[in-house]
Amino acid sequence: MKQKHVVIVGGGFGGVTAAQSLQRAKNLKITLIDRRNFHLFQPLLYQVAMAGLNPSDIAIPLRTLFNKQKNINVILAEVDQLDLQNKKIHFDQKWVDYDYLVLACGAKHSYFGNSSWESVAPGLKNLEQATEIRRRILTSFELAEKEDDLQIREKYLTFVIVGGGPTGVELAGAISEMARHTLKKDFKNADLSKTKVILVEAGPRILAAFPEELSKTAQKNLQDLGVEVVTNTRADKLSIDGLHIGDRRVETKTIIWAAGVTASKLTQQLPSPKDKQGRAIVRSDLSLPESQNVFVVGDQAAFVLPNGATLPGIAPVAIQQGHHVARMIENDENHSPRFDFKYYDKGMMATIGRSKAVVHTFGFSFSGFFAWLAWAFIHILYLMKFKNRVFVFLQWTWSYFTFGRGARLITYKSWKFYDGEKIDLS
Amino acid sequence: MKQKHVVIVGGGFGGVTAAQSLQRAKNLKITLIDRRNFHLFQPLLYQVAMAGLNPSDIAIPLRTLFNKQKNINVILAEVDQLDLQNKKIHFDQKWVDYDYLVLACGAKHSYFGNSSWESVAPGLKNLEQATEIRRRILTSFELAEKEDDLQIREKYLTFVIVGGGPTGVELAGAISEMARHTLKKDFKNADLSKTKVILVEAGPRILAAFPEELSKTAQKNLQDLGVEVVTNTRADKLSIDGLHIGDRRVETKTIIWAAGVTASKLTQQLPSPKDKQGRAIVRSDLSLPESQNVFVVGDQAAFVLPNGATLPGIAPVAIQQGHHVARMIENDENHSPRFDFKYYDKGMMATIGRSKAVVHTFGFSFSGFFAWLAWAFIHILYLMKFKNRVFVFLQWTWSYFTFGRGARLITYKSWKFYDGEKIDLS
Repeated sequence: MKQKHVVIVGGGFGGVTAAQSLQRAKNLKITLIDRRNFHLFQPLLYQVAMAGLNPSDIAIPLRTLFNKQKNINVILAEVDQLDLQNKKIHFDQKWVDYDYLVLACGAKHSYFGNSSWESVAPGLKNLEQATEIRRRILTSFELAEKEDDLQIREKYLTFVIVGGGPTGVELAGAISEMARHTLKKDFKNADLSKTKVILVEAGPRILAAFPEELSKTAQKNLQDLGVEVVTNTRADKLSIDGLHIGDRRVETKTIIWAAGVTASKLTQQLPSPKDKQGRAIVRSDLSLPESQNVFVVGDQAAFVLPNGATLPGIAPVAIQQGHHVARMIENDENHSPRFDFKYYDKGMMATIGRSKAVVHTFGFSFSGFFAWLAWAFIHILYLMKFKNRVFVFLQWTWSYFTFGRGARLITYKSWKFYDGEKIDLS
Repeated sequence: MKQKHVVIVGGGFGGVTAAQSLQRAKNLKITLIDRRNFHLFQPLLYQVAMAGLNPSDIAIPLRTLFNKQKNINVILAEVDQLDLQNKKIHFDQKWVDYDYLVLACGAKHSYFGNSSWESVAPGLKNLEQATEIRRRILTSFELAEKEDDLQIREKYLTFVIVGGGPTGVELAGAISEMARHTLKKDFKNADLSKTKVILVEAGPRILAAFPEELSKTAQKNLQDLGVEVVTNTRADKLSIDGLHIGDRRVETKTIIWAAGVTASKLTQQLPSPKDKQGRAIVRSDLSLPESQNVFVVGDQAAFVLPNGATLPGIAPVAIQQGHHVARMIENDENHSPRFDFKYYDKGMMATIGRSKAVVHTFGFSFSGFFAWLAWAFIHILYLMKFKNRVFVFLQWTWSYFTFGRGARLITYKSWKFYDGEKIDLS
């Protein structure tokens, strides 16, 4: 009997979990395709942008993850076409057959049709964006230090984060804390305690997915850290010199985008209906309505709950869905019936700064130091799959006691530094 | 009395040591200018290229180094003009006066007039080049894994290093070891034990600065690791498909340049004579013949010994020279006479691979495990100025016992990964 071929596209939480869960399916041949050679622990990506962690602390080569799993092949490639009719996918200028297809391609930032805003306000979805944001923030402080015109210096010391979800909250808190504590003594001209961080949220409150009291706590914590929180207001007219926050004009060199997301581009090639974030609406077993053997998981999928809401684009959802899809494929092979995906909601958490976090779990809400400890503990625990958990733990402990930021490097895109070539320091 | 102004250009070993040695000179105002915001521990840069260490493990923000030193100001800028006549330097579109000028701008790679070779064969002088080399090496292995044509696969698995100095030797040993040990089990199609590493040296032996017996030991160690060492032969006709090694044509995608260096471009603006590497020939107190108050140190300076030879471009020379210049400035201020710079040669060392190194110190030569231990010990000791010494030490210990390479990430220049945009995987 011919070995059946499972192709998994995407090495994020969904794809990796699906592949790992198929470990014992010796009768299946599995191919995991990603355009990057590593799995990224996205929940801690903001720590790279904030110079707290190194890129490799939160990324692990996919090959290392699977080097002991015999039935899997990892390929570094970009899938560019799908042919669900003939069960083929296209990459590296060739068509490859599959029996089962698992799409776990994730999401990218959406600028609501203003794609020119991207170069002005990078989002935080990959390592390069994280080091780019790190570069912009650190460069702004450097320019402020050199600037004698107080008005221009104020512009350099103003940072705007668009979007009040967990990423926006984490970034706003971290920038304000970094300026007021870590960097303060390093700068002798500019007074970094005057750093202005503005968090802009279009909706009525930040952390909208959390209970209202936690939103309030988070907002108060941010304000204590010196962050200005602006709700019910839209960011507009983004440019390299600033933006509009509602009717107010704010001069700034550094804007970070943490607002909308939309499903990965490959989703557009699927014949199934999409939700308003461009995600493929999946059936209750996570397969597509027209193709039983095609599954979509994680940020690329819209799983509609009985109340009409959809599951959020967070790691636990992707992990559980990856696991479910593996079970469905095994059931198909064993001629057992499929069953519905059920999300087991363990709660959610967001960190605001040193010793401050909000947690909502099993109907309980708490915040403060113990919430922060819980946040740190759970993230370390999940990082357990990574060999570098020890280093991350040590780095954090060190940073916690020293207020330090270990990875404060301004690195550039170009590796060619001919002496004649000017580095763009702006 | 007006405070005298010391301007130091360059935050490498020479510049940083000069600034630190002037710590107690409270009557002097010191400005340290660098176009990067960090000091780089260059002797370990090859470890970043080889995915063994993170960029931030070997780089420390200059501001952090000097945040307790009251008399110094750190500026992120690029000095582009010198006016020694009027004691002025130019950066950020303005002229600034100095009383003493210390030039510590370092060196860059020289392609002997073939500047088009640079994009084909990057050198290893800065962090971006290190991550670029890492990207190229790891990508070659990935392409080999996907390639079924054995001839093309062989091309992907061939790596050529041009230049048999310490950096070339370290790179050649590390690539071969990485392919044969660390990565072998991660790749299921390509047989990485077939990886071919060729080290090309134009002179009669590698590690020419070492005693001949150590060159032989190093060559034997490299050969044991599977490296082909080619001496008395020039690399030529470098292209993206390969190169000529003497008369022999070698097909390869990955060439690394570790051959010639030339002094930083600013050196050309100095009126003093240069040596053939473009370095400014300094007087016995490290000042310039025509300007007593201008000093040049480190890789940018040619210090001619009584026998006509010049000091090599290594960290100990730069450190001792930085220290000497600080003493000279203090002596000038105290109306004490200057004295000649004397290099205290503690010896030299190069590492070849896991547990293998060569050391020459105070007339003694040794190699093998104890040489490697000495190498590791001394490098950790020098890193002591960095807060991350603990992490580097742990990372090394970990890598030593697991044969692991923690930072195996292929990262790209562009942070804009629009879904529509193709990543160049070649």
